[in-house]
Amino acid sequence: MITKQLVDNLLETSYDQFSDNLILHAKKSILNWMGVAIGAANHESVNMLLELAEELNNPGQISILGRKEKTDLLFASLINGMSSHIFDYDDTHLDTIHHPSGPVAPVVIALGEKLNLSGKEILKAFILGCETELRISNAVCPSHYDKGWHVTSTAGVFGAAVAAGILLNLNHIQMTYALGVAGTQAFGLREVFGTMTKPFHPGKAAQNGLLAALLAKKGFTSSQQIIEAKRGFANVLAPESNLNEIIDGWGERWELEKNSFKPYACGIVLHPAIDACIGLRDRAKLEDVKEIEIHVNPYVLELTGKKEPKTGLEGKFSVYHSGAIAFIDGDGGQRQYEDDKVLQASTLELRRKIKPVVKEHFREDEALAILRLNNGEEYTNYIKHATGSIENPMSEEVLQRKFNNVTSQIISKEQASVLIEQVMKLDELESLATILSNCTKA
Amino acid sequence: MITKQLVDNLLETSYDQFSDNLILHAKKSILNWMGVAIGAANHESVNMLLELAEELNNPGQISILGRKEKTDLLFASLINGMSSHIFDYDDTHLDTIHHPSGPVAPVVIALGEKLNLSGKEILKAFILGCETELRISNAVCPSHYDKGWHVTSTAGVFGAAVAAGILLNLNHIQMTYALGVAGTQAFGLREVFGTMTKPFHPGKAAQNGLLAALLAKKGFTSSQQIIEAKRGFANVLAPESNLNEIIDGWGERWELEKNSFKPYACGIVLHPAIDACIGLRDRAKLEDVKEIEIHVNPYVLELTGKKEPKTGLEGKFSVYHSGAIAFIDGDGGQRQYEDDKVLQASTLELRRKIKPVVKEHFREDEALAILRLNNGEEYTNYIKHATGSIENPMSEEVLQRKFNNVTSQIISKEQASVLIEQVMKLDELESLATILSNCTKA
Repeated sequence: MITKQLVDNLLETSYDQFSDNLILHAKKSILNWMGVAIGAANHESVNMLLELAEELNNPGQISILGRKEKTDLLFASLINGMSSHIFDYDDTHLDTIHHPSGPVAPVVIALGEKLNLSGKEILKAFILGCETELRISNAVCPSHYDKGWHVTSTAGVFGAAVAAGILLNLNHIQMTYALGVAGTQAFGLREVFGTMTKPFHPGKAAQNGLLAALLAKKGFTSSQQIIEAKRGFANVLAPESNLNEIIDGWGERWELEKNSFKPYACGIVLHPAIDACIGLRDRAKLEDVKEIEIHVNPYVLELTGKKEPKTGLEGKFSVYHSGAIAFIDGDGGQRQYEDDKVLQASTLELRRKIKPVVKEHFREDEALAILRLNNGEEYTNYIKHATGSIENPMSEEVLQRKFNNVTSQIISKEQASVLIEQVMKLDELESLATILSNCTKA
Repeated sequence: MITKQLVDNLLETSYDQFSDNLILHAKKSILNWMGVAIGAANHESVNMLLELAEELNNPGQISILGRKEKTDLLFASLINGMSSHIFDYDDTHLDTIHHPSGPVAPVVIALGEKLNLSGKEILKAFILGCETELRISNAVCPSHYDKGWHVTSTAGVFGAAVAAGILLNLNHIQMTYALGVAGTQAFGLREVFGTMTKPFHPGKAAQNGLLAALLAKKGFTSSQQIIEAKRGFANVLAPESNLNEIIDGWGERWELEKNSFKPYACGIVLHPAIDACIGLRDRAKLEDVKEIEIHVNPYVLELTGKKEPKTGLEGKFSVYHSGAIAFIDGDGGQRQYEDDKVLQASTLELRRKIKPVVKEHFREDEALAILRLNNGEEYTNYIKHATGSIENPMSEEVLQRKFNNVTSQIISKEQASVLIEQVMKLDELESLATILSNCTKA
């Protein structure tokens, strides 16, 4: 009766049970999410979706972050969820490589605008949606992810449905059915990584989950045990699972408090390698480098093994490009993953000297780089915990700097400052409308 | 390179390669599909979707079968695909228990209306969409279905994308990407069978596949080997597969020619049992029946084992109700699965006397019923091939009678006659508009 117990827990949780630390994590998560969504607002894939919405005469009601266009609730959730994952620069729950805000935040923002809700209502729905998806991720990972599922999307659809369900005041059976309609729609194959379809996943999961809750509110029926049934989510999509993870210690620990933010605009598995290479760049000039050997967790080569990336997007799936550009530029921001950076001669040359070596016992936030020079000198840099990890978290100040950087092409500095203040005081905000007016250049 | 070869095959196939028999099967499939979609047009789940479309201010462009309301392309595909599966009375590819029209027909009808296409264009897209989904079903079933996947939905999304892609004139790479965006969205758990979410599956698969093709047309990128990649569709969703089924003998055999139509408004696995019980009803009065033992294929109890159904919908998942009502009414039409029929005293009494017995070696279209009377008499009825199977197909006349019956509450007899004629002459039709004007009561 895992699904029933989960719904019991969700409906019995009130805002005043949330600690200040949890609420701070929620605000930081939303701020980080909003920044990367605004930053990617002019990406060609966003243009394609908006063109389609226009061709369909989709009505303009709900804001698209960083754009002047509006669409309906469902389209807006899809687009805002997608844009937030385009840079691969969003938040990460490290235990499961799940990006929790992507499927949940677009739903609370869209419904918040539509229903004119307060900041506290948004925060509550966001926290419960994230808690649901992250606990489901814990329950089915790593076997589910290893099998080939993009857990951000497959577990995310539950989070989206719950967040919407909380804001729509679903009762017990409605929330149960919302989970049913959401869970049967779980989708997302890792095969599409490195293409526009990867960021499409959290957006579509948001849209599918929102649709599930909207239908359940109307009495649409579904399974009452979608998570644990013989032919339900866990048994069909996960070779191994521990469903007690979903309900054990509810209210005592919050997975969102383990959420981390990326200093670099690529998959989190690359971050310790980037840290390691940045730390060595003062040791030598580019022309003196013979090779850089990087010891990494096995996922690094599995996920980011592209040797000859041709586009910025492909560069995010290349430890070779990431190590090279980190050494050359001393950074791994969005700029380092633009097409010209991937194609420039100095990167091409250095990335052929990057030698990743898998170390089975290395954690995902751990790396070691060995810089070997043509003259025989050798320097080593060991990263115990990558920047942005739980043990080495990004400060609020660094997060704000990231927000300013990533949104700088889309909104003004003044707008960014106001947004940061509004989100960091979200629990005091009476209406979401004031925030959304600052998400597009006036 | 299965995905590439499939796209090669699709783009190299022209209408004049289709035999008359194949085109006849396509027309019969569309007629049957349209009938059951029109028939279910006033179902409460359809009302819910249309209410939602209205709340979202979704624009009225594309027809909803059997309704006056219109919505956009994507919503219309969802609703028409869903309504066609509500009665569980649509077509079936018996080898895989796949209902091919559900995900494909709503897409060709919607795009046909939007783009004002001819009957031949519709037929070509329909045939190629169905061929794609059915060959993919062949490749991954039975292990995929046994695992818990609703193959109509999971393989159907590929068919929907292909049908849309053909009508949108996608080139090779666009069609490849359309398959990528579609395939990663494959979803649908058998756990939701018996609820409104089951018919939601083909509708949502239609919508997801159409969206995939619309985005691919704009240049949206995805995997180029979604079917066969290590973390692609087949490896992740099917414990065993034979992907050559997708490309072998292309153009020499057509899976749509194996499509069958249901004489009864429930899952095809129940049909031989219903045939068997109908054939015994002249042998005895109801009050003399001691028990009816029915020998069936193992899927019957797995899929339709509900002993005490409470609603008409649940009755479709009950061999007990189906056997009882077949004996009492001599039919298994939509009327036999309305709520009052499931709750009436005579059905309740007789269904407790129905004794299904699994016979491992029985095919799915085979059944044997043994009627035992209180006076010790015993009668047997063996069904070698159920009505509507390949070996015992429904004639065009019976199909037309079914169309008239199932649409009778929604459109006039005259409209039904015109529709039958138009669909059976679809290859001569210049524009779909004339058909759609007859799908709603004037």
